[in-house]
Amino acid sequence: MTIIDKYNSRVDNVNSLACVGLDSDIEKLPEEFKKTEFPQFYFNRWIIDQTHQFVSAFKANIAFYELRGDRGMRELKLTTDYIREKYPDIFLVCDAKRGDIGNTNFGYIGSVLDWLNFDAMTVHPYLGKESLGPFLERKDKGIIVICRTSNPGAEEIQDLVVDGETLSQVIAKKVKDEWNYNNNCLLVVGATYPKDIQKVRDIAGDLTFLMPGIGAQGGDVGAAVKAGLNSEKKGLIINSSRGVIFSSNPREAAKNLRDEINKYR
Amino acid sequence: MTIIDKYNSRVDNVNSLACVGLDSDIEKLPEEFKKTEFPQFYFNRWIIDQTHQFVSAFKANIAFYELRGDRGMRELKLTTDYIREKYPDIFLVCDAKRGDIGNTNFGYIGSVLDWLNFDAMTVHPYLGKESLGPFLERKDKGIIVICRTSNPGAEEIQDLVVDGETLSQVIAKKVKDEWNYNNNCLLVVGATYPKDIQKVRDIAGDLTFLMPGIGAQGGDVGAAVKAGLNSEKKGLIINSSRGVIFSSNPREAAKNLRDEINKYR
Repeated sequence: MTIIDKYNSRVDNVNSLACVGLDSDIEKLPEEFKKTEFPQFYFNRWIIDQTHQFVSAFKANIAFYELRGDRGMRELKLTTDYIREKYPDIFLVCDAKRGDIGNTNFGYIGSVLDWLNFDAMTVHPYLGKESLGPFLERKDKGIIVICRTSNPGAEEIQDLVVDGETLSQVIAKKVKDEWNYNNNCLLVVGATYPKDIQKVRDIAGDLTFLMPGIGAQGGDVGAAVKAGLNSEKKGLIINSSRGVIFSSNPREAAKNLRDEINKYR
Repeated sequence: MTIIDKYNSRVDNVNSLACVGLDSDIEKLPEEFKKTEFPQFYFNRWIIDQTHQFVSAFKANIAFYELRGDRGMRELKLTTDYIREKYPDIFLVCDAKRGDIGNTNFGYIGSVLDWLNFDAMTVHPYLGKESLGPFLERKDKGIIVICRTSNPGAEEIQDLVVDGETLSQVIAKKVKDEWNYNNNCLLVVGATYPKDIQKVRDIAGDLTFLMPGIGAQGGDVGAAVKAGLNSEKKGLIINSSRGVIFSSNPREAAKNLRDEINKYR
């Protein structure tokens, strides 16, 4: 069983491609959590309990925890421990966007994949396959290579043309053909550019995409799902963060996200 | 006075382009430090006291601290506080290699540039100038964009050809012409490929390069310095980590690094 199988099993069990992003910006937390000893953890625990039955994955962007230094790291650890214990079949993604030279990457592996015990993490492709070796060797973990991001200025570098293809398409091809030798690679493909999603899907076969950009960032669910599904009607981890966790009813928002996605499957 | 001026003043004062890398891998620390309450901090403090008069910068690769979770972050904070208090005119670089979408980057800014209080940090270019806006707006800090790295597989992505130039050359040009509007940008240019250093120098004018890869990684000091100096005989932050901090005599190793560099200035 590969790490992707873990995600796919959950998808089948709860009929959901939805992922809730625990981007628990301390400034935006409700006052009742701000007053507690572990504001980010207690908030996350509440969100997790409210939304778990509708999702196949949780994603934490580590920047919102690092912002609080060692305290934030401790609260992220409490969060992953809680999910591991209470909902162990949910796929756990750390959006860390790391990428250093080979040996140094063991630091991030030790931190994100071992200590925090995430199932998968995002990495930058710019230093190449050789540098990512320590990640790619981890057959038990998912390595999510940044390919086409959801931000408005993504095209500046990612659409540069190399031999008739965009750089993001070149990355997708490399990951599929050369970097995925342990069947543990995924791609970051933002929801905000449906045409690009389709092109990356054409290149990447059935690789699974982590898809941010739904909700607050403006990505359209229908267009993104239609362009992104793989041949098994899966292959997507569709993330909404602010749109769920800071809504007036996170439970309802997570359910709606799942249902909206399923309309187009 | 720009943040680059801070570095250049120190270069003039101690006649050094040397940087010591505090890559204090917990496994490799001498036994006498491993036994203490704060092994990485006490080791760093010793290295800093031994080497400070020969260097213009210290660089910490944050991966070696994150590996220890919240404890490591605490020891990195103790380290930067110590340097700030005792040697405030030394330029402090965090090799963090971050890069997320715009707003999320405020997390890394809050952590690395504010809480840890580094003068400068390294960032990935793949999400483009727009995503790096929160970094680039920080006129008081140095933003070191990864351009040409020192690892053996760097060429896989960085030498892809875009309109007749390599991707790393395209990045260098963008940083110089478009991203450096606050005069706070630097580039990562590894020491291991002198021909590439020369090409990036030709493109980048007098931008300062953070140059890893000397010593354990095999970069030749003479070739790197000759190819990399800018028109003011500065423009380089030449880093050695393992070659200094794990040598039998770090003080001597730092002095030798400075003197070896100065032979070619």
